[in-house]
Amino acid sequence: MSALTSAAHAQLAPAAIKWDGKNLQLLDQTRLPDTVVYEAQTNIERTWQAIKALKVRGAPAIGIATAYGLVVAMQSHESAPPDEFRAALDNAADYLISARPTAVNLAWAANQMREVAAHTPTLAALTAHAEQIHADDEAMCAAIGEHGAHLISSGANVLTHCNAGALAVSAWGTATAPMYLAHQRGIKFHVYADETRPLLQGARLTAWELAQAGINVSLACDNMAASLMQAGKVDLVIVGTDRVTANGDVVNKIGTLGVAVLASHYNVPFYVACPASTYDLGTATGADVDIEQRDPDEVRAPWALDGVSIHNPAFDVTPAELVTGYITNVGLITGEQLNQLADANKNLDP
Amino acid sequence: MSALTSAAHAQLAPAAIKWDGKNLQLLDQTRLPDTVVYEAQTNIERTWQAIKALKVRGAPAIGIATAYGLVVAMQSHESAPPDEFRAALDNAADYLISARPTAVNLAWAANQMREVAAHTPTLAALTAHAEQIHADDEAMCAAIGEHGAHLISSGANVLTHCNAGALAVSAWGTATAPMYLAHQRGIKFHVYADETRPLLQGARLTAWELAQAGINVSLACDNMAASLMQAGKVDLVIVGTDRVTANGDVVNKIGTLGVAVLASHYNVPFYVACPASTYDLGTATGADVDIEQRDPDEVRAPWALDGVSIHNPAFDVTPAELVTGYITNVGLITGEQLNQLADANKNLDP
Repeated sequence: MSALTSAAHAQLAPAAIKWDGKNLQLLDQTRLPDTVVYEAQTNIERTWQAIKALKVRGAPAIGIATAYGLVVAMQSHESAPPDEFRAALDNAADYLISARPTAVNLAWAANQMREVAAHTPTLAALTAHAEQIHADDEAMCAAIGEHGAHLISSGANVLTHCNAGALAVSAWGTATAPMYLAHQRGIKFHVYADETRPLLQGARLTAWELAQAGINVSLACDNMAASLMQAGKVDLVIVGTDRVTANGDVVNKIGTLGVAVLASHYNVPFYVACPASTYDLGTATGADVDIEQRDPDEVRAPWALDGVSIHNPAFDVTPAELVTGYITNVGLITGEQLNQLADANKNLDP
Repeated sequence: MSALTSAAHAQLAPAAIKWDGKNLQLLDQTRLPDTVVYEAQTNIERTWQAIKALKVRGAPAIGIATAYGLVVAMQSHESAPPDEFRAALDNAADYLISARPTAVNLAWAANQMREVAAHTPTLAALTAHAEQIHADDEAMCAAIGEHGAHLISSGANVLTHCNAGALAVSAWGTATAPMYLAHQRGIKFHVYADETRPLLQGARLTAWELAQAGINVSLACDNMAASLMQAGKVDLVIVGTDRVTANGDVVNKIGTLGVAVLASHYNVPFYVACPASTYDLGTATGADVDIEQRDPDEVRAPWALDGVSIHNPAFDVTPAELVTGYITNVGLITGEQLNQLADANKNLDP
């Protein structure tokens, strides 16, 4: 991991994951923003629990925490013979994956570590690879920042939805990366963070992490974006994404589509920050994506509402034609240039 | 008051106000939907407190509660000489107005009662006038229902925002009046109630009152309306309004504008239910309306967010061109026909 890059990031965004070459600490995001506590991951059971309980969340952050968690678990097996070392890693990897079996980056990172051990069953090799995963993620964030920061002019008002920030990724996050870089360059601007019902990631996480970094941020309810745009108080929108389908449709947190339609109506540029790895060539359009319906209690609480159904989709699909541009680690591109992401994807590690 | 009309309404919507000719009961709306309690208004101090604490809310409902509250207060002065009777009413009216000095309908109803006493200082005259105010409001709701119910077809999905329902008005409310009438006519349809952040009137009040009436209702977060419309799951929108300006702009609860823009984008008809009395010829356009910024704690709670500003406007302005039609007590009209509201306004009591 590049210590220089990390130090620069550290001045701005709060870190979800701290690593000193040997010791892992995870920020307990379930207690934000009231309480800021880093928990030392002294054993793998604790890391399993942190992943299970969503103390660490966001696909890239989970991948990084998994890799480091396995390094910590293997420290006590440092001098084991190769077969025993690999068997211990296998056990630890299977155990961590069981914390959230559907989390793609968890299994991806655990399997990366297994492949390393297959060739080089040493703690040093595992440590180096975990640090590489972390550094690659930081470099991805930095590249997204570079390709998007110039969109934020002095005095600009940026609106974002949900949390595609440092807390979910590493370093500068994705949607927030252009904001952190513009801030570091001394640009004075202001961010509206949608609170993002029902789980309020915008209120709990985005507003908090931007304020921690000294960025001027206001919290607004999701339904206030329209009047802000009507009043000319939003110059651009930047959101993250869980998946971009082959035609450029954007699958992201529920509410993103509404922001995109409003932005189109009021001629506000709408940008999607996305690592090349989120470009899913295997899915033709957003219509092919199943949208998970989540627990009604997320919306219902704290009221008992007898006889009232609850509508609680996790995501929505923003059509490609509403996207002004994709801010990616390989450049700021339009829908017509999405093939650049496909090419970048081919070069990713398996 | 028309007993027949009230009985028909009573089968459907829960009443904010109950009156039996002598005794006043107010539903404590601050405890909804968990607890349904009607509080007997045995003295004027209790009614003052109910208005102050928003146990009764919604401009028309406050007006009706004020009129009946004054009747109850004057019951012990029934045999007082005329001057003494008028002085007692004056005192009681001033006292009730002090509960919410900016509530227009409170002062309007109290002053109506004073005018009655100026001519006829008797308890019977006051009682008759209070019942007339109530009956006029019910008739207004019924007329809005008649002019809008045909818009709701069998199998339709209706989306509404905030609470312009029975709880805020009388009888069937305004935005909900077409729903209650369609339901009474046996039309099977479904309503999406926006939860309406930050105060959640849609979740606490609208979803509750529609469910109480046996109407099929789902609660959704405000940011879910876009994907519902994208999926063809909204056939029409009906909202209420606090004020319609001379050019047809609609001042209503924050979030209404966003729904209107989305409806326009997805070709969903967008209707505004409004009594003629909400048509404000004295204000040219929505741009002339000052939008109140409310207490930041409404948005912030339950989190402490140091360094984060809070954006919390109470209302927004929906431009007339986004309104498909106005469902009023004098007919279903378009923007070009707004002069009908002006004419109806001229015929209103001063």
